[in-house]
Amino acid sequence: MKVTPWEVSGKIDYNKLIDQFGVKPFNFALPKKLQDNLLFRRNIIFAHRDFERILDCIKNKKKFVMMTGLMPSGKFHLGHKMLADQIILYQKLGAKIYLTVADVEAYNSRNTNIDELKKIAIEEYLTNYIALGLKKKNLDFYFQSKRSKDGKKSNAFYNLAAIAARHATFNEFRSIYGDITPAKMSSSLLQTADMLHPQLEEFEGPIPTLVPVGIDQDPHLKISRDISQRIKFHNFTQLSSTYHTFLPGLSSEKMSSSDPNSYIALTDSEETVTNKIKKYAFSGGQPTLKEHKEKGGNPDIDTSFILLKYFFEPNDKKLQTLHDRYSSGSLLTSDLKDITITKINSFLKTHQKKREKAKSQINSYLN
Amino acid sequence: MKVTPWEVSGKIDYNKLIDQFGVKPFNFALPKKLQDNLLFRRNIIFAHRDFERILDCIKNKKKFVMMTGLMPSGKFHLGHKMLADQIILYQKLGAKIYLTVADVEAYNSRNTNIDELKKIAIEEYLTNYIALGLKKKNLDFYFQSKRSKDGKKSNAFYNLAAIAARHATFNEFRSIYGDITPAKMSSSLLQTADMLHPQLEEFEGPIPTLVPVGIDQDPHLKISRDISQRIKFHNFTQLSSTYHTFLPGLSSEKMSSSDPNSYIALTDSEETVTNKIKKYAFSGGQPTLKEHKEKGGNPDIDTSFILLKYFFEPNDKKLQTLHDRYSSGSLLTSDLKDITITKINSFLKTHQKKREKAKSQINSYLN
Repeated sequence: MKVTPWEVSGKIDYNKLIDQFGVKPFNFALPKKLQDNLLFRRNIIFAHRDFERILDCIKNKKKFVMMTGLMPSGKFHLGHKMLADQIILYQKLGAKIYLTVADVEAYNSRNTNIDELKKIAIEEYLTNYIALGLKKKNLDFYFQSKRSKDGKKSNAFYNLAAIAARHATFNEFRSIYGDITPAKMSSSLLQTADMLHPQLEEFEGPIPTLVPVGIDQDPHLKISRDISQRIKFHNFTQLSSTYHTFLPGLSSEKMSSSDPNSYIALTDSEETVTNKIKKYAFSGGQPTLKEHKEKGGNPDIDTSFILLKYFFEPNDKKLQTLHDRYSSGSLLTSDLKDITITKINSFLKTHQKKREKAKSQINSYLN
Repeated sequence: MKVTPWEVSGKIDYNKLIDQFGVKPFNFALPKKLQDNLLFRRNIIFAHRDFERILDCIKNKKKFVMMTGLMPSGKFHLGHKMLADQIILYQKLGAKIYLTVADVEAYNSRNTNIDELKKIAIEEYLTNYIALGLKKKNLDFYFQSKRSKDGKKSNAFYNLAAIAARHATFNEFRSIYGDITPAKMSSSLLQTADMLHPQLEEFEGPIPTLVPVGIDQDPHLKISRDISQRIKFHNFTQLSSTYHTFLPGLSSEKMSSSDPNSYIALTDSEETVTNKIKKYAFSGGQPTLKEHKEKGGNPDIDTSFILLKYFFEPNDKKLQTLHDRYSSGSLLTSDLKDITITKINSFLKTHQKKREKAKSQINSYLN
């Protein structure tokens, strides 16, 4: 098992990751507002650091920030939706959302075509966020490359990234990231600035800040948390974070932006979805109908079932029934796939209408 | 001999440095405008990279940029004056001057007191630059930490530093700098942005840019030149640079900001100057009067003579006469020191009046 911000491979053992990364499982009750959300209820968000501070804000209606980013590459797919769902959840709970387009990181690690990066960020990501329910109120949407505002806010963001360098050593970067290049170090320092700059006096001032991430992104949190406490003159409140499990690719391997058959994009047509699930979705069923009816399938490794669990069957009882019927063999793989196809296409039909509407709102989000 | 941006020690062999750093001696005639300047005439500026491009601008009255910076630490002394003299020379020759206060670098390498850095930059450095003749016209004076302007110029500077990281490897940093830390790498990338950002479309666009430095600073030039040619979408004109020899400290060791007896500050009183030269200036004379008269002294290692050569005896014939008389033993160390003391104090008397006048102009330079 290898889990770093730049590579995830092998069989993922989340309990081992909890130990290895030093994050914590949720060993306290979550309020109803969070339990209502299936990502929390189903333990898809499975670990945290200092989340108590955010709970306190939610319970006592105190102001907090949720910060996250997007890497503009490829199509917006269900893996991205998992984070989008969290953004919209916290926005509804009153958080101020800081949402960055990590275009400088993308430039440093992947694609040097800046115009293309901008186009992808807007047409793929922002459009889908809006269609999924992201509101303009309590939102600060920005491009890393353009992070500057009138007057005092000018270059506080980049300046923070530059001075953060003083507060970490190469050995730390190496021990946290495994290997490191100038581009990765620069990206890491920008991530630190992304996470901490909402607390600068030019923005909100010191304030509880939540960064929800996939567990592979924890190294960025770890070094940012350390740096935050070493920059004495800013008095940063320590960062909070939550960690979600990986949504597997359709074939149960990791999703890959460069392989469209590994994911469902939110712009996929009905036909494409049907084809992708039938052809590529990994089945937890048995090789023959006879065996399946005798031994039953394994829903926990079946990607059609996993999609229902993560997104498309909000009713716990119904999900449990599908789980039980599949395990007992009474529900066949082809039937399960049909259920998933119907649910996804029903969602996408509505979503794609919302996307068309969202397009006309883009400009108001950019200004 | 060790010569890096962070350490200079041992006996300096400039011919060896020319080879080692891969810079070039001036093997072409310099125009009168430059020969008139004693730093060029006396080979104190002894090497260059791509200076032909700047000569072409000077000869044909084409626009060019001269970029340099100051590290706000300690008092402004004669070592700093050497660079100031070059700034003012090129400003008179029509160059647009980009002059940065490297306060982020200072934060990253020395002093985390940002208010103190600002105070030193203004009260010590800027005041003396103005008194030495720096004009407001064709000057862009900025603090690294505040580099941002209205509208389009906003964060182009910091953005450039961030994307520059993609275009260099750790092995390059290591081979160029010897050793490297995150803070040093961040400083190096900011230096690259300092040197190249005048060529961004938000500033001048591609334009010949001269960076005059002490030879120890060449590693910054080397990596910036390499990076500039790798960032394809900006079309940077390759940087030009000149290299000057080190002004030794009074005791002939390296000057040190933390040892006031190693330098003459431009705020030193008549009495302090007299005392420092008499007590600390290294003498190239013989141990006894008898021996000195017999064997003669060595002006080339005598720091009183060196100060005359670098700054205070602009007349070549007079300087040669002093050189010859000292070498022959007819001029004694105490007499040579008296000459130097008189010259420095005469300069400082006028300069300190100009400093008082400069104080009232500070604000107009900052806006």
